[in-house]
Amino acid sequence: MPSASETTRRMLRALLATGTADKLADRHRSTRENPKPWLRQTKSLDRRWTAALWRTLTGHGPATEADEAALYDAQAQADLPLYERNIENYVGALRVPVGAVGPLRINGLFANGDFYVPLATTEAALVASYGRGARLISAAGGCAAGVIAEGVHRAPGFAFANISEAGLFVLWVMQSEDALREAAEATTRHGKLVDISPHIEGDHVYLICTYTTGDAAGQNMVTIATQALCRHIEAHCPVKPAYWFVETNLSGDKKASAISFTGVRGRKVSAEITLPADLVEQALHTTTRRMHDYWRMSALGGVMSGSIGIQGHYANGLAALYLATGQDVACVAESAVGVTRFELRENDALYASVTLPNIIVGTVGGGTGLPTQSAGLNILGLKGEGKARALAEVCAALCLAGELSIIGALAAGHFARAHANLARRDGDR
Amino acid sequence: MPSASETTRRMLRALLATGTADKLADRHRSTRENPKPWLRQTKSLDRRWTAALWRTLTGHGPATEADEAALYDAQAQADLPLYERNIENYVGALRVPVGAVGPLRINGLFANGDFYVPLATTEAALVASYGRGARLISAAGGCAAGVIAEGVHRAPGFAFANISEAGLFVLWVMQSEDALREAAEATTRHGKLVDISPHIEGDHVYLICTYTTGDAAGQNMVTIATQALCRHIEAHCPVKPAYWFVETNLSGDKKASAISFTGVRGRKVSAEITLPADLVEQALHTTTRRMHDYWRMSALGGVMSGSIGIQGHYANGLAALYLATGQDVACVAESAVGVTRFELRENDALYASVTLPNIIVGTVGGGTGLPTQSAGLNILGLKGEGKARALAEVCAALCLAGELSIIGALAAGHFARAHANLARRDGDR
Amino acid sequence: MPSASETTRRMLRALLATGTADKLADRHRSTRENPKPWLRQTKSLDRRWTAALWRTLTGHGPATEADEAALYDAQAQADLPLYERNIENYVGALRVPVGAVGPLRINGLFANGDFYVPLATTEAALVASYGRGARLISAAGGCAAGVIAEGVHRAPGFAFANISEAGLFVLWVMQSEDALREAAEATTRHGKLVDISPHIEGDHVYLICTYTTGDAAGQNMVTIATQALCRHIEAHCPVKPAYWFVETNLSGDKKASAISFTGVRGRKVSAEITLPADLVEQALHTTTRRMHDYWRMSALGGVMSGSIGIQGHYANGLAALYLATGQDVACVAESAVGVTRFELRENDALYASVTLPNIIVGTVGGGTGLPTQSAGLNILGLKGEGKARALAEVCAALCLAGELSIIGALAAGHFARAHANLARRDGDR
Amino acid sequence: MPSASETTRRMLRALLATGTADKLADRHRSTRENPKPWLRQTKSLDRRWTAALWRTLTGHGPATEADEAALYDAQAQADLPLYERNIENYVGALRVPVGAVGPLRINGLFANGDFYVPLATTEAALVASYGRGARLISAAGGCAAGVIAEGVHRAPGFAFANISEAGLFVLWVMQSEDALREAAEATTRHGKLVDISPHIEGDHVYLICTYTTGDAAGQNMVTIATQALCRHIEAHCPVKPAYWFVETNLSGDKKASAISFTGVRGRKVSAEITLPADLVEQALHTTTRRMHDYWRMSALGGVMSGSIGIQGHYANGLAALYLATGQDVACVAESAVGVTRFELRENDALYASVTLPNIIVGTVGGGTGLPTQSAGLNILGLKGEGKARALAEVCAALCLAGELSIIGALAAGHFARAHANLARRDGDR
Repeated sequence: MPSASETTRRMLRALLATGTADKLADRHRSTRENPKPWLRQTKSLDRRWTAALWRTLTGHGPATEADEAALYDAQAQADLPLYERNIENYVGALRVPVGAVGPLRINGLFANGDFYVPLATTEAALVASYGRGARLISAAGGCAAGVIAEGVHRAPGFAFANISEAGLFVLWVMQSEDALREAAEATTRHGKLVDISPHIEGDHVYLICTYTTGDAAGQNMVTIATQALCRHIEAHCPVKPAYWFVETNLSGDKKASAISFTGVRGRKVSAEITLPADLVEQALHTTTRRMHDYWRMSALGGVMSGSIGIQGHYANGLAALYLATGQDVACVAESAVGVTRFELRENDALYASVTLPNIIVGTVGGGTGLPTQSAGLNILGLKGEGKARALAEVCAALCLAGELSIIGALAAGHFARAHANLARRDGDR
Repeated sequence: MPSASETTRRMLRALLATGTADKLADRHRSTRENPKPWLRQTKSLDRRWTAALWRTLTGHGPATEADEAALYDAQAQADLPLYERNIENYVGALRVPVGAVGPLRINGLFANGDFYVPLATTEAALVASYGRGARLISAAGGCAAGVIAEGVHRAPGFAFANISEAGLFVLWVMQSEDALREAAEATTRHGKLVDISPHIEGDHVYLICTYTTGDAAGQNMVTIATQALCRHIEAHCPVKPAYWFVETNLSGDKKASAISFTGVRGRKVSAEITLPADLVEQALHTTTRRMHDYWRMSALGGVMSGSIGIQGHYANGLAALYLATGQDVACVAESAVGVTRFELRENDALYASVTLPNIIVGTVGGGTGLPTQSAGLNILGLKGEGKARALAEVCAALCLAGELSIIGALAAGHFARAHANLARRDGDR
Repeated sequence: MPSASETTRRMLRALLATGTADKLADRHRSTRENPKPWLRQTKSLDRRWTAALWRTLTGHGPATEADEAALYDAQAQADLPLYERNIENYVGALRVPVGAVGPLRINGLFANGDFYVPLATTEAALVASYGRGARLISAAGGCAAGVIAEGVHRAPGFAFANISEAGLFVLWVMQSEDALREAAEATTRHGKLVDISPHIEGDHVYLICTYTTGDAAGQNMVTIATQALCRHIEAHCPVKPAYWFVETNLSGDKKASAISFTGVRGRKVSAEITLPADLVEQALHTTTRRMHDYWRMSALGGVMSGSIGIQGHYANGLAALYLATGQDVACVAESAVGVTRFELRENDALYASVTLPNIIVGTVGGGTGLPTQSAGLNILGLKGEGKARALAEVCAALCLAGELSIIGALAAGHFARAHANLARRDGDR
Repeated sequence: MPSASETTRRMLRALLATGTADKLADRHRSTRENPKPWLRQTKSLDRRWTAALWRTLTGHGPATEADEAALYDAQAQADLPLYERNIENYVGALRVPVGAVGPLRINGLFANGDFYVPLATTEAALVASYGRGARLISAAGGCAAGVIAEGVHRAPGFAFANISEAGLFVLWVMQSEDALREAAEATTRHGKLVDISPHIEGDHVYLICTYTTGDAAGQNMVTIATQALCRHIEAHCPVKPAYWFVETNLSGDKKASAISFTGVRGRKVSAEITLPADLVEQALHTTTRRMHDYWRMSALGGVMSGSIGIQGHYANGLAALYLATGQDVACVAESAVGVTRFELRENDALYASVTLPNIIVGTVGGGTGLPTQSAGLNILGLKGEGKARALAEVCAALCLAGELSIIGALAAGHFARAHANLARRDGDR
């Protein structure tokens, strides 16, 4: 890391090149002059609202009719009613290219067979790289995979006047678990409250509520159930909090966290394979020894970077697969953690495993029912009820394919070349 | 957190319900039986290849012609040539609904004015929530914002026979910085090598190479430049490494890491606003005191969760904006870290700030030139050269809007309700 | 942080001032020439062995008879038999000055009353500062304190041939918990096996075994019990590991870790107090508002430093108290984590709390029975069985006193002055 | 980890066994009844004060004259004047047994030769284990060691009215570095200000000030110098902070932190050795392969525990050596982080290295001049000026010895046995 002073100093110099210090400070001045016209927020989607939004965007902002034509084309107009529960202030549909790789052979507890995998991305080389890894895995007979644990959390917080009341509150909660479970589960058909775990910090009590959520990713389900649980507490608990909130950041929602990494959030999945040395040489043009050397050096690099877990680039595969199958792609922030392990075994065979404790995917609800996202799930054969665990295993297997391919490329010295060949545009140089 | 034993125990019980232990183990058995037909990997895009891919997908996999029609519609066929440098194994285009919010008034060093902001997501309530926050900020005269530091890293690693050679190597590198800079910068028009920072671990040496990358996000640029730097070392350094790799996980690429969080990756940006108490009450139906109570409790919740930094849900806004403007959405894994701070100031005004040290965005290259992504940048008025710093400031301002809105909802007790109203489908319950 | 390049560059320059690069490398050369005579390792303590050790130290090393006289004085000679189970290769006794502070009034669940607290340290100002904090707490009527949770861990690890066997192993372990508990508990009178929690990573299984250990700190107790548990597995489990180890770093032993911080290691304890504004002004010469400002800024400083939890200097108080009462002072590495919270309440009263989840203390065993350490426990009135929970509460109360005093000094601008007055020697300047 | 609910539930049950909920809450009630008599705080040491302290301790507390006799024996009375700048409220001297090990052959840049090493501890088996590791290292020709980087930090924080002023402040600081350095260095003979690195978070600015501190550990030195630097800012900077503090937790003082781990605090030191397979078998009764298996499994265990770095038990060796040589033993909290690496090399030789970036030691000042601590430094031959870097290398070499010995014991299955043999007392069972 260059010193903060160096990167900040450069930035300050760059800034001073654009104006004096006083003028720079001026730019920060706030003003209540009328802003541009508001984009009107409406509760439902309607072509008239969308047309009105575009009038504002092109009439008062820098967008042009060409932009409207690109985003709000015939298909986007036709699809408008389908997005009713997925978007507000609808102005059209983004198009993201999708590539398919596979078959990826998975010998999983739930995903068992040969899978074609759709990946949505705009990053060159990504699909090719995952495809290469998938092919290698399948050629070796497939990877084993298994969901190990499940659970989605909400963490309401309760503030008391002192530690004493906090203690009495916890006591009451623990004696009232059945009633609390009932209150929570009354709001949902698929959600089950698995555990209420109290964390005391001074006179604050956080309750980590853990649910299983069937085949839905479940974040909304657990929010609504926990709200009901909190309302029950509010109504019945003799120890009254000064204030409380339904979620207070101890659930690990939408961020990498040690608590989710050491436990589970969504589903914890492992995938593994043992690759013969000659197969690796043939497929990746490098040796298993060199890949193992890479693993050790990069695992320690990860440790020294202070990342949560050690892995190469789970985020790439997960983002592309989440996107293509209608998952909440913001969850990549929490899902892209885990442990990649490479070992040399007998005859220089390469054992490789990935373990991802925070896979948040669903095969019902959210964006899974939209036309192209639904097609993505269908390419996998994993749409609908009873498929979410299998999808989680596909996530792990895909990450394994990605780690093998990219580490193969780094070990073979091809990493930079692939990007130079597939990605480079002039403006990007 | 429920104990690992509890969540694992439940999973094992669920598994045993599907078969005996032996049968479960059987599912992991690998087999070299011929897999399904490969999806052929090709170097360029061509309608014939895409047709062939679909023949395989529908002929040998679970996908149907309806899925092909959804993903590979007329527009996706027409756009095929545009995706040449963004995808391989092209099978069509995903459509993701886009909502627009704003204007968001930003008094930034680079982003200065009223911005309409496009957000691509399938998650209900997200656009509405960010829109509410944007409106509040603009009504208060806008937020200040500023890029504080810049730099993108690659971290090649070099292994030596012992600590002594590692030391001599670092000595040589430090005496050869000019030549190394020249070698790296020869590969790029826009990239500048800012710093080479050695990290020694036993007989391993990692060199954190920091670059500025103009208006491109720059990951490929720094890979290619660092490859050249390494080749120069290989050719000229008298101390020969046993092996080396161009990237070894100390760059923070595609993952949340302490080293990037405490330094910078991409751009470090802050945004802030001071909101009068009455404006907050009017807009968010809660008090600034209650929002401050929420901040404290959730900040400590974040600390206790072991997250990197403390914040609410940067990932939501960043993912939606990255997607809508052609950024690499996998970077949300690294970008969604930072610090949100709320303070009560005079007359119960609420000071709110966000600081995001790892914003990776570009306004040229990558997916920014694709039709709908380009339209996204045009809605902001930030397409092309000279705009990346402004885009980074928009990212921070948007995250500030999101934090204000969601914390407002949590403080007002509306958080669960918004999701229940806007998101709930039956399958999701 | 200055860049690694800057601090390394300076070091390299300093080195080159002492010799050429080649000569520096020479210093690393290993040689099998006979080393100096070994200090003979013996199983028991004996004055003859100690005399022999000193003959070697003074005859072949730089130590002199004056050093022998200092370390191995009459008392150290007399005490030799007492150290039989605490040291090997005994050469004498270190003397560390002890100061006493108090009374510290604690309104704890287990520690209830006014405590005089012994602190062993060589750092000037430490005793005075904790004394000031203790006095403030007592003047305000004492702090509340409570042990919230208990548990000491060992984490044996088992390696299998593949993920399948790992799964079958976990299944067997979960079905065999009673037998495993029996095996473990057969080795100990006080230790109880509370939980066996499996963590799967690829084909590795870690079992986090949690015990309560009565009034002993318990690290040895849990090691021996877990060894027996592993032997039982080895003898009876049909799924045979390739190899296993009794401890594999997942227990958090002797290091700060997220898993212990988010859970418990030893005892989790909170202490709190609410201080009237005028009392603070009188005692600390600063205002509660300023202390609250300090808390916020330093809490965020802690977050940005990537520490585990946020606190000021628990390590100082814990090290001095652990030392004075015969605890394992190396445990400061794991114990000195937690959360300090300051809040402004009505009439600018200052609420302050500390929560320490990893207090590892005992009132029997280890060094607690040695003459001066025993005296330390007696000053507290906490020697022997039934006192460990109270001692844990004293630890938290002491840390609260320390945080109040040091933050008071920082807020009043006295921090540097105290060190200048009490600590400065000429050589230290 | 067992669930928090489980460990808390057990604690609550244990509590309820001691009284009803109401009675428990009663114990937390504060009372302003006169506390026991204060231990009078005095500015200097004097036998009369000490006698008075003991009168209070024995007259009003549970201590007895036997305790006074133990702690305040003839030697402790004689030594009183020596402790003037190390303790307040002096009541006597703790005695901690010291063992010596070695010679430990170090082929370091600064520590070069055979060292006898004093270790102060009350933990059985510790000295024996480190002695075994030292002997192994020396038998193999010694370990290489080298200080890689140096720097001690203070991090004052400055709060402004808004981000704009924060930016102008940073600008001024960067343009005033020479004057700030002069102000800081005027307070010290040995301290040099190496870098001022600004960290901006909203309208807060933290300045990480890095110093080299000669042969002193330096914490007081950098506090006093930074106070002067801040006073200079206060007097001369046109941008006035709302408030500021001389230290705000971004320096990593007295706690494990990512920022110190990824950079340096005190000194960064590496030590390494390559051990032939037969030597390991002979000395440790296990194989290098098995030790390597252990390393991998425990390194991943460390990663999964969320520790900072990966290592076994640096804290044990560091605490014992810091104590025996008059260092600040509370610094073990920050020093006991780093990376241990084991690799199999040709002919199954074992490469082992340790890298500790946060070694805080001095050979002048602090407790180094006290009689027994001085003797400890003399045993090493490292007392006085010009020796601190060598002492840091001894720390690393000692940690390497400890890692080799303990991992050897764990690999050989002797770990539990050693503790059972050397440590067990009846009360401890």
